[in-house]
Amino acid sequence: MSRPPFADWLSQTNDVTSTFLAAGQIPGLINLAGGLPDPSAWPVTELAELAQEAVRDFPAESLAYGPVPGQPRLRDAIAARFSTDALPLTRDNVLVTTGGTQALAALGLALVMTGQTIAVQTPAYLGALDTWRARGPDYRPMVLEDADFDPVAAMTGAQFAYTVPNFSNPSGRLVGTDQRRALIDAARRTGTWLVEDDPYGALYYDGAPLPSMLEMAGTDSPVIYLGTVSKELAPGLRIGWAIAAPEMIAALSAAKQGTDMFSSGLCQMVTALAFERGLPEAIRPHILSMYRARRDALCEALETHLSDWFTWEKPEGGMFVWARARDGRLNTDALMRAGLTEGVCISPSSVFDPEHRDHGGMRLNFTLNPPDELEEGIRRLARTTRAVLRDAA
Amino acid sequence: MSRPPFADWLSQTNDVTSTFLAAGQIPGLINLAGGLPDPSAWPVTELAELAQEAVRDFPAESLAYGPVPGQPRLRDAIAARFSTDALPLTRDNVLVTTGGTQALAALGLALVMTGQTIAVQTPAYLGALDTWRARGPDYRPMVLEDADFDPVAAMTGAQFAYTVPNFSNPSGRLVGTDQRRALIDAARRTGTWLVEDDPYGALYYDGAPLPSMLEMAGTDSPVIYLGTVSKELAPGLRIGWAIAAPEMIAALSAAKQGTDMFSSGLCQMVTALAFERGLPEAIRPHILSMYRARRDALCEALETHLSDWFTWEKPEGGMFVWARARDGRLNTDALMRAGLTEGVCISPSSVFDPEHRDHGGMRLNFTLNPPDELEEGIRRLARTTRAVLRDAA
Repeated sequence: MSRPPFADWLSQTNDVTSTFLAAGQIPGLINLAGGLPDPSAWPVTELAELAQEAVRDFPAESLAYGPVPGQPRLRDAIAARFSTDALPLTRDNVLVTTGGTQALAALGLALVMTGQTIAVQTPAYLGALDTWRARGPDYRPMVLEDADFDPVAAMTGAQFAYTVPNFSNPSGRLVGTDQRRALIDAARRTGTWLVEDDPYGALYYDGAPLPSMLEMAGTDSPVIYLGTVSKELAPGLRIGWAIAAPEMIAALSAAKQGTDMFSSGLCQMVTALAFERGLPEAIRPHILSMYRARRDALCEALETHLSDWFTWEKPEGGMFVWARARDGRLNTDALMRAGLTEGVCISPSSVFDPEHRDHGGMRLNFTLNPPDELEEGIRRLARTTRAVLRDAA
Repeated sequence: MSRPPFADWLSQTNDVTSTFLAAGQIPGLINLAGGLPDPSAWPVTELAELAQEAVRDFPAESLAYGPVPGQPRLRDAIAARFSTDALPLTRDNVLVTTGGTQALAALGLALVMTGQTIAVQTPAYLGALDTWRARGPDYRPMVLEDADFDPVAAMTGAQFAYTVPNFSNPSGRLVGTDQRRALIDAARRTGTWLVEDDPYGALYYDGAPLPSMLEMAGTDSPVIYLGTVSKELAPGLRIGWAIAAPEMIAALSAAKQGTDMFSSGLCQMVTALAFERGLPEAIRPHILSMYRARRDALCEALETHLSDWFTWEKPEGGMFVWARARDGRLNTDALMRAGLTEGVCISPSSVFDPEHRDHGGMRLNFTLNPPDELEEGIRRLARTTRAVLRDAA
């Protein structure tokens, strides 16, 4: 019996995510492909207590139907966390979302109709492209590091511009203060929204954090700031947020209503209690020193084993090193597939290109594995690179 | 500064939900409008223990990134719960969703492009219409109680047919076994999918539950069955599920990936542990006896105070009584607004009509309030009805 066809956009879903998941089943494989935190970063004991307390002491908040835009207590805690003298926020500036992913999906729902344009920092976060696929957008790549990048030209006519200024996924790049200001100015001049996705903003390993574009733009701002607990507490809570002008929060909330009605009350209460008691700040020093050492170990291993074939910049934070092949014949899609048989998995650049045409780069994660595993992974990758180049020759 | 316009569909969102939410702020108002459970139905002590145990003993499952279609342990528990000899289910038949709402949204994403048709049991669940609005569907109403209802005509050319056979929201109607069979046959003959949304399937107050269409159709079935913990454990967990053929689960999973990536690991583990230990079954007798008494109290009050102006049928389960005005001049939109000043809130039929043309009915909830409050609410509603009819005369 034939059934109605699936919607067109479903056939455009890439199969990289399923390849990664299948790779997780290969014994002994060193996974440099994902963007996973180290499980030792989770405050298990504290979160177990908070989960019990949330249900026991706040059953109405944790167990009942809740308001679409989020629990007032959590919205207030998030507003307080990001308020400055120049930027006084209230709960009307805050939408609670089911992970950062849902905020991206809500942006697509609220702002994009088929054929409209999203300007996207490229190489681009794969998960963001996934959330917008069903809306049928056109993409305009924004390569912020290009010398002739023109933010006004890039944003003109776009429904919104999407950026990850702190240690972008996948490039690990930190957008400097001057360029942040230029992006804000361009958003103001072109009258478009400027999305600042900031999952890695707490992961600065070398210096003090730069001011966010949200903070720089102040009130009546074109900036929509997105955050998440995935890197600061635990991804399994699925709690994220959008901070923006109240009119935008209302629109995103209407979009959220049609996707899951409201986010888990239990997870919202756990997050509110954790924020009120400073749990992210308490565990941050451990996370930073662990990830800093791993970044250094990965970069040393790259220098030792892969510098003949790749170039990269040591990132000042985040979770990723972005490496570019020196030799145009080195195809990183081939490198990913060949790596699986050598016991190492990387993310090829093609999946971060909305047009799937960039085959000369790769993303390496350094947060999941300890230093010795990272070094062994890079050794395997060097062997794989030699083999792939031999086949290409 | 003008900004890009919001997507067209956002302006079509009805304002009833916000009216209801605002109504919640009126002191002393008796809310008959919502579909809320009684807080005493929640197993607070047990869920508090399970929440602690989930994080403490299963941190990887509760706190890490998890698979898009759900934790294998929860998918297995759901498959086991719904398997019969005639219908052996595995985890490949199960998608975990963020509440029942997300399963509906995923159906729209996976199956509907602008202008395609959804056949909808009417009066229709408002929340389902919310999830599909951004997809731009056409609706074909299915009035199952009409003597000349033809399921084959209704389903021909539809992407799917949406039904709530057990105590439909809003009508409270139970679809009988013969009509369930006719719906399955029509889905098979027309080659469309048949959605069986079943949030109220555990709330039978008078007799034994009828077999689900999922169970009746057996394997290779056109049925997509949707369930939720919202009425059996607690809505704040935001855990629901779809059960269907593996090809449909794969498509719904791809759609879910772009909406929130995966559902809360913490809430999934709490649900898995609760199911494995029979917690829904343990609390069910209390819930059923409480809600049965409230249904009876509401229907007695209707008989005493409103039978001159309304007709209704006592429902055999669920959460709602659906009442129709005897007098065509009695507009239930006006009744809702007037009721707010009398201290009672009802749901008018217009919000359950995809075309907003039905003004002659209302939905009354009996699960949230104790019997004396229900009777006082109906007294107030009788006063309001007299006033509205006087104004209309």
